[in-house]
Amino acid sequence: MKKLINKPEDVVKESLAGLGAAYPDLIKVNYDPNFVYRIDAPIKGKVAVISGSGSGHEPLYTGCVGYGMLDAACPGEVFTAPTPDQMLEAAKLVHSGEGVLYMVNNYSGDVMNYEMAMELAISEGIRVRNIIIDDDVAVKDSLYTQGRRGVGTSVLAAKIVGAGAEAQYNLTQLADLCRKINLNGRSMGMALTSCITPAKGTTLFDIGENEIEFGIGIHGEPGRQRLELKSADEITEMLAVSIIEDYGYNRVLREWDEGKNEWIDVELTDTSLENGDHILAFVNGMGGTPLPELFIVYRKLAEICDKKGLKIIRNLVGNYITSLEMQGCSITLLKMDDELVKLWDASVKTPSFRW
Amino acid sequence: MKKLINKPEDVVKESLAGLGAAYPDLIKVNYDPNFVYRIDAPIKGKVAVISGSGSGHEPLYTGCVGYGMLDAACPGEVFTAPTPDQMLEAAKLVHSGEGVLYMVNNYSGDVMNYEMAMELAISEGIRVRNIIIDDDVAVKDSLYTQGRRGVGTSVLAAKIVGAGAEAQYNLTQLADLCRKINLNGRSMGMALTSCITPAKGTTLFDIGENEIEFGIGIHGEPGRQRLELKSADEITEMLAVSIIEDYGYNRVLREWDEGKNEWIDVELTDTSLENGDHILAFVNGMGGTPLPELFIVYRKLAEICDKKGLKIIRNLVGNYITSLEMQGCSITLLKMDDELVKLWDASVKTPSFRW
Repeated sequence: MKKLINKPEDVVKESLAGLGAAYPDLIKVNYDPNFVYRIDAPIKGKVAVISGSGSGHEPLYTGCVGYGMLDAACPGEVFTAPTPDQMLEAAKLVHSGEGVLYMVNNYSGDVMNYEMAMELAISEGIRVRNIIIDDDVAVKDSLYTQGRRGVGTSVLAAKIVGAGAEAQYNLTQLADLCRKINLNGRSMGMALTSCITPAKGTTLFDIGENEIEFGIGIHGEPGRQRLELKSADEITEMLAVSIIEDYGYNRVLREWDEGKNEWIDVELTDTSLENGDHILAFVNGMGGTPLPELFIVYRKLAEICDKKGLKIIRNLVGNYITSLEMQGCSITLLKMDDELVKLWDASVKTPSFRW
Repeated sequence: MKKLINKPEDVVKESLAGLGAAYPDLIKVNYDPNFVYRIDAPIKGKVAVISGSGSGHEPLYTGCVGYGMLDAACPGEVFTAPTPDQMLEAAKLVHSGEGVLYMVNNYSGDVMNYEMAMELAISEGIRVRNIIIDDDVAVKDSLYTQGRRGVGTSVLAAKIVGAGAEAQYNLTQLADLCRKINLNGRSMGMALTSCITPAKGTTLFDIGENEIEFGIGIHGEPGRQRLELKSADEITEMLAVSIIEDYGYNRVLREWDEGKNEWIDVELTDTSLENGDHILAFVNGMGGTPLPELFIVYRKLAEICDKKGLKIIRNLVGNYITSLEMQGCSITLLKMDDELVKLWDASVKTPSFRW
């Protein structure tokens, strides 16, 4: 295993220490339990937005903490859900009395630990809500997931929901906003190569010199198909068409109901993507993908969207939700409306997002 | 070879097309010859700043075009110097009459082609100056270089010189500023892995499972030493100490003298890095390095600088001057003064730099 690390067990803490040292004007790092939080939290009158997942997907989420985005991010060990005490202690530190919105990617471990954290927070008198992100159209049920996995839309949700919180949305409004983003967003990814987690020291999965994994998960979970290597244009077309033609995924997701003081099943009617819709097109690298390759994909994606009558009004291209040094990409399309555009454009200042 | 590309010969043009499609509010792309330029160029009353190098180092330089940074970037084929017609046509399009500063990384092909472009531009009545960046302390004379190679300092120079141009520095002042940045900056890099250029299709060099190349060039040029794999802290210490203890590299670099209307050899007296100096610390990934690893390096670098009495007052951490999907990192230290801090902090809006 070749990595710029010291001991595998120190990777998360040492990288957090570096992040904290690099951005002392934006964030602070708490250890044991580990979380990154805004230097100016708690912010009076503002709902706190918290997310987190296993490490190894950077800049998601630790690079998303700061003005106009997250109040706190809770990084687990590499590819391992954060523990409830991380989410609980982060909430206690950053909430201002207006409540906390937890944005949770749909992996069983994450969902379970967030629910435990929420119950603990509620018992301490903190108002909480949760929204699950499950935007990956590749497969239903996966290695670590019941239902669909949460992937690229979570990056966009962190930006837009964070802007909503900054714009004084209350907790209910923010939960509604986040739920809309999840329903409006669809993603799919593919891998050219595997990656190596520091703890395992060997590749997560085997893949041949002329193979790609189509519909990969961000922890190397199997996708839809193992295929022969294809051109960038063919891969882009397959990903884009899979996303654009996906519709009718009505599902039930668990949310905490503040009024009833209990968990409820929320029935969600899927959004469609149609000719004439305005979209944000997000081409994401899996970590080890050179930027020019992502732009080759974006070029083809723009052409496909144009042909399908989808108008790209905003975009994001880069390595944002990664799987360590994995090579490959994912595409996320988010249907936009005036509210989402306004919040996407709102200024942001975090380690990895600044405009 | 596994890459998100179509035909190897189309990589540069297709990635430029994607870049242009993604940032239509900031840049335009010219083809045959290839260059990227500011959408609002030429800008009246402002010196134009142009750079460029082989492709494969993105976001350098095509991601650096826009307000407060470059007026144009000229990307050659992958790891191949741009041709004189690229630099000439870019200058003709973006210059406003106040002159053009070419920032050139010290590789023999780049230097030769920039000199030819400058002579052609002069013959067309355009005022031009050039400053060579040769900040890599690893080796003197290399596979493609006489003297030292130009690496990480070029990223910082593009930002700071671009801000100077925006602040109405004239051509002489900008050349002086760029020369100062080159003298104040020192870099060194290392690789864990090689990379594969699309045209070659196989790794640039062989490196064993337990080996690193210490002092690597950004085109895979041999470094100082082939060493056994070491910890991130050991690697950081070796890079940082090599940089900090480097001094006394007085050299002669060629510049165009506008008054004499000829090439002159400028004798440069090296700057030292001393206890108490203020610095910008830049930890750069070679392309395929996960962000957490770069922060592990930054954490150790900050500790070393602190011990040596060097005060880090600004920093940059990320994959900025890359070698495709190579894994590894480089460190650049730039001695700062009030002028450099002010220009570094000045607002910037390019595909890859926004603040």
